[in-house]
Amino acid sequence: MGLPITFLTDYGVADDFAGVCRAVIARIAPGVQVIDISHGIGRHDVREAAAVLADSLPYAPVGVHLAIVDPGVGGRRRAVAVRAGDEGHLLVGPDNGLLPPAIDHLGGAAEAVDISRSPFRLEHPSATFHGRDVFAPVAARLALGRTLEEAGEPIDPAGLERQPVSRPRLEQHRAVAHAERIDGFGNISLDLCRADLDGHPLAGSPRVSVGSRKRRRTATRAVAFEEVPDGRFLFYEDSSGRMAIAVNRGDASEVLDLRVGDVVELEPAP
Amino acid sequence: MGLPITFLTDYGVADDFAGVCRAVIARIAPGVQVIDISHGIGRHDVREAAAVLADSLPYAPVGVHLAIVDPGVGGRRRAVAVRAGDEGHLLVGPDNGLLPPAIDHLGGAAEAVDISRSPFRLEHPSATFHGRDVFAPVAARLALGRTLEEAGEPIDPAGLERQPVSRPRLEQHRAVAHAERIDGFGNISLDLCRADLDGHPLAGSPRVSVGSRKRRRTATRAVAFEEVPDGRFLFYEDSSGRMAIAVNRGDASEVLDLRVGDVVELEPAP
Amino acid sequence: MGLPITFLTDYGVADDFAGVCRAVIARIAPGVQVIDISHGIGRHDVREAAAVLADSLPYAPVGVHLAIVDPGVGGRRRAVAVRAGDEGHLLVGPDNGLLPPAIDHLGGAAEAVDISRSPFRLEHPSATFHGRDVFAPVAARLALGRTLEEAGEPIDPAGLERQPVSRPRLEQHRAVAHAERIDGFGNISLDLCRADLDGHPLAGSPRVSVGSRKRRRTATRAVAFEEVPDGRFLFYEDSSGRMAIAVNRGDASEVLDLRVGDVVELEPAP
Repeated sequence: MGLPITFLTDYGVADDFAGVCRAVIARIAPGVQVIDISHGIGRHDVREAAAVLADSLPYAPVGVHLAIVDPGVGGRRRAVAVRAGDEGHLLVGPDNGLLPPAIDHLGGAAEAVDISRSPFRLEHPSATFHGRDVFAPVAARLALGRTLEEAGEPIDPAGLERQPVSRPRLEQHRAVAHAERIDGFGNISLDLCRADLDGHPLAGSPRVSVGSRKRRRTATRAVAFEEVPDGRFLFYEDSSGRMAIAVNRGDASEVLDLRVGDVVELEPAP
Repeated sequence: MGLPITFLTDYGVADDFAGVCRAVIARIAPGVQVIDISHGIGRHDVREAAAVLADSLPYAPVGVHLAIVDPGVGGRRRAVAVRAGDEGHLLVGPDNGLLPPAIDHLGGAAEAVDISRSPFRLEHPSATFHGRDVFAPVAARLALGRTLEEAGEPIDPAGLERQPVSRPRLEQHRAVAHAERIDGFGNISLDLCRADLDGHPLAGSPRVSVGSRKRRRTATRAVAFEEVPDGRFLFYEDSSGRMAIAVNRGDASEVLDLRVGDVVELEPAP
Repeated sequence: MGLPITFLTDYGVADDFAGVCRAVIARIAPGVQVIDISHGIGRHDVREAAAVLADSLPYAPVGVHLAIVDPGVGGRRRAVAVRAGDEGHLLVGPDNGLLPPAIDHLGGAAEAVDISRSPFRLEHPSATFHGRDVFAPVAARLALGRTLEEAGEPIDPAGLERQPVSRPRLEQHRAVAHAERIDGFGNISLDLCRADLDGHPLAGSPRVSVGSRKRRRTATRAVAFEEVPDGRFLFYEDSSGRMAIAVNRGDASEVLDLRVGDVVELEPAP
């Protein structure tokens, strides 16, 4: 039957882009399972996609991981396929920073090839839809057991492009972090882990003032949403292992007017 | 191959929540079929989810039915798995009223277990994403043939939480019902069945005045949309067996400004 | 296992309509693969659906192609199943113009049946949800190998309904085309192919003035998006083989205020 293929894009659900890629896969690799991770990545948002992919792939079976957020399609960026870790995970996508965080989580890049001119491409590939013409057919062939060597030209895995990584700044009485992911419920994941707070006054503070320079709210340190009343803020470790800010049955990003990448200040509250 | 798993949530399609659950299932139960019923339930809307699940599962194959709308995640609500009817249907989800209407439609609860501390959970379960850490892995193991007894602690199926049920009120010359489901086309299903109207003047009335106290329209009693001109209202029995109000090629909920739960008055029209 | 089933509708992702059809298929044809092409067709937009289906099916495996955009459900329009080309492609849907462009692309209709009263329908079919009650069960039986003859009454394939087709008008110094598809990125596909421009001044023009009577922009003739700076217009052959207008990392339909069907004027620019 072949390896399963996970599938993540910014194609959305209004168009047939993801569907046509599924069709291409089914035509080349009948019966191979396609596991949709998400097609709701913000348009062209490579950083968000990289974070989502890195968070989700550790839960996936060994397989081919097809990820396409590709504002530079048809341009100079390379198309790549990468083997990660020891278990046989294979990642396929553009070389624009999307894949490396997930590769790191899966054990690091063991082998990489440039598939820009792969023999597995469809005939007469377009310059604007490499999902259909390059990435999906390569992923399908790899799922059927074809090798990276057959799929493209060897490249140095160390040379894969990476997105800049934001880091929180811990000061004596406060932390300056960033909104790294905001989900559809409005919950805000920070670029801050619990370990970052070790020894810091914020670590033990039962109440934390959170927000932007303009809008601040007091959040209760909690484990589960239900520990705070409806409509109130909590500060907690979320399911991705990041420290996060949420409103129980509400939308924290809306109340605080925060978007991905924005600065979030945190201070112990009285 | 195992039993198929149907899957319904309020996770939406913007995030990877449903996708990560699919990944967890594929990792534990390779090749098991996942049938997405809907991930478009209104956020935290347990009542809507319960109605959609009850309407859809009678069309599903015998299998594991994974349903997650879970505003109380990580709190005191139990996580449960339930066997329903004689055919072997298994339902997995939070014990907050989501499952019982579907269980009723499938023949009633034959056996139930509390899976809050199931041995099938992922290691180090989070307090905020039980879909990934509790419900999906339990569903996957049940799909592979593991028993309810292995999945959790026996509980009394009669003790499962239920949502309050709205009921229409039939008066001498009118009915006072409620909007129970409103679909994406704006069609309004009422908590009113054709049998409720037996012997009532509304049953035989070819024209019916429908709406709220503020906005009323005259609807034609019909079987199919095409019986009324574009833009006109019809009053009909919908595909779920409920009496419903729609506008042919229009949006009835918008015109009447009605939301789920709102009162809808119906009277024979001249 | 049976043939795979591709699936395209205007059901959206907020409701369970597509999910219930998937459930019906899984119940009748366990293990048959369902390949979602798109459920994001504009509500009741048969023309858009016909174009998307015709563009996507040439990439699909031989199988059953279930397509439902059906404003006339329950009315006089026929429900049909059609065999197309020599490879065994089968199409199932309403007879309202949705299927013929795809049938043409697959090699033309070889056989057609009216399935309005198919023995494969569910019992007690509703008048408003033929996706669940007629189309999905017929598609599932065909995937299992049942024949068109068993599915319905023979009809003349030449009598299938067709949507009107828009055509561009080429004048001496300009072209008057129409927006045929607009994707979620705002890229505009025209009813104009490269071959239509042969010998026309537009064919060799490196810059083209594009837009409506009210709003015009100058686009650069290009192959890939990256050839123009962010925010600038390009005029290119898109992945469906149509001439198209886009903004690199922007939304051309928004800037030009164009919708599907609108007139688009093109002239060589200085």
